Amino acid sequence: MVQTNSLDSKPTPINPFDLKAYLAERRAQVEAALDQALALRYPETLYEAMRYSLLAGGKRLRPILCLASCELVGGSPGVAIPTACALEMIHTMSLIHDDLPAMDNDDYRRGRLTNHKVYGEGVSILAGDALLTYAFEHVATQTQGATPERVLRVIAGLGKAVGGEGLVGGQIVDLASEGNPDVTLETLNYIHNHKTAALLEISVTSGAILAGASEAELDTLRQYAQRIGLAFQIVDDILDITSTPETLGKSVGKDITAQKVTYPSLWGLEESRCQAEQLIEAAKASLAGFGELRRPLLAIADYIVARTY
Amino acid sequence: MVQTNSLDSKPTPINPFDLKAYLAERRAQVEAALDQALALRYPETLYEAMRYSLLAGGKRLRPILCLASCELVGGSPGVAIPTACALEMIHTMSLIHDDLPAMDNDDYRRGRLTNHKVYGEGVSILAGDALLTYAFEHVATQTQGATPERVLRVIAGLGKAVGGEGLVGGQIVDLASEGNPDVTLETLNYIHNHKTAALLEISVTSGAILAGASEAELDTLRQYAQRIGLAFQIVDDILDITSTPETLGKSVGKDITAQKVTYPSLWGLEESRCQAEQLIEAAKASLAGFGELRRPLLAIADYIVARTY
Repeated sequence: MVQTNSLDSKPTPINPFDLKAYLAERRAQVEAALDQALALRYPETLYEAMRYSLLAGGKRLRPILCLASCELVGGSPGVAIPTACALEMIHTMSLIHDDLPAMDNDDYRRGRLTNHKVYGEGVSILAGDALLTYAFEHVATQTQGATPERVLRVIAGLGKAVGGEGLVGGQIVDLASEGNPDVTLETLNYIHNHKTAALLEISVTSGAILAGASEAELDTLRQYAQRIGLAFQIVDDILDITSTPETLGKSVGKDITAQKVTYPSLWGLEESRCQAEQLIEAAKASLAGFGELRRPLLAIADYIVARTY
Repeated sequence: MVQTNSLDSKPTPINPFDLKAYLAERRAQVEAALDQALALRYPETLYEAMRYSLLAGGKRLRPILCLASCELVGGSPGVAIPTACALEMIHTMSLIHDDLPAMDNDDYRRGRLTNHKVYGEGVSILAGDALLTYAFEHVATQTQGATPERVLRVIAGLGKAVGGEGLVGGQIVDLASEGNPDVTLETLNYIHNHKTAALLEISVTSGAILAGASEAELDTLRQYAQRIGLAFQIVDDILDITSTPETLGKSVGKDITAQKVTYPSLWGLEESRCQAEQLIEAAKASLAGFGELRRPLLAIADYIVARTY
């Protein structure tokens, strides 16, 4: 990206990467693909409930990471679009189920009523189940331009990131830790490595797997993902304290109300910000071996921590 | 199978297929594979909840159909064992979620307290999510001896059988129809074709897909499966009226209490039995082109309708 300086006819590279434009373009691409992947059909209640949460906006960070990592290792983003959609379906399923009264009991999400407040608990549980199922089906049936071996590897990776060794495992430990003021840093790390970082990791690696990345490239991407994943969670904990429902689109102050141990409650706000920044720097450093194409992933890393200011 | 007649030294073929022994052997094989597939690990609460329902007995009809259809077309059952386990994980997930207070609100299943009565609703929702996820992961990572294309086709088929076009779609329409005395036969068929028959269909076809069945063979197996699937549901409706909680291991009379339209409520008990028997005969007839190896599938078809007497 190059801008013309009005006082000088020579172009000056003052804005090496326009993240805002990049994210907007990618987000539009993902929104369109999601809308198409999950068209309204019979039984409408189910598809309306699925679409209500799936198409409720959001940053689409996971799909965008998937597409960016696919391009990073020389793939065409088209090969990763079904997986990008699947990542968002899985993420949405986890939000719908987490918001249920039997779990976090949240009334608002992304500035709107949560799924079960609109459709009732039974439909919400089923909408989550259908989104989770459809994620796997969509990758299996819609991926084009990758070998079946790579598609299977992505499906296996998605499964690991969601099940007992991933998201669900993290959520179980999170539920069990609520109201316990003696939760250790080790447990807190377990919760977030599984509840948040695991899905971010497969978001980053899946796009690269489909594009045929080497094992060394995948190791590097895994490092990057783990670091931004933890930073992301620290930032989320900070925002729960410092943000407003208007800015965040969901309830704030929940962690304190629920007496949850969080990074800020263990480290304080300043140290938490500092840790997040260090993680982001380390994440960016791990990509040093890649060339120009790493710019989106560098910018996304910065963007994650920038949300706290 | 040949038995010796004690009055005559010549063996007489009086028992051409010992279904009881076949089912017992297969069931033991499936139980062992399930136990191994889902070993207890951290976080224990989650795995205990998953294992509580997954290893609670049951007929293991879906896995056994999968293994039998694999052998029918000349495959070794080993290739289908991970898929057989996945089918039972999916079936178990659907039972756990269906039993929740927000759905059918059942306290007993297979003679024991339902999952959420033991572990609480939050853990039960998550245990179902993890079982569903693990089903796909298990097929993707554990299937040996089949091409990746076939494994992907099975994963796609499982997805279709579970999501909005399968199990979940059927359950949504079922929930919406409860207490409505004007439910038509068409809607009732929709519910059961999706809630029950779809998973039975992929149970039968998946084993054959992994073994490399032709499209014509798969069409035939699909016919068989659709017929036993509908018969199975008619029989379930009959048993809800005629059986006891002790025999069935779950509550009975629920359909009448919930004012559900069922096959017996539309047709009466006698006509329902008659329809189930006709479906079973048609199912068996559709396998005419297969040889000796079809005997387990013939016997299983008979077994489904025999449960009503």
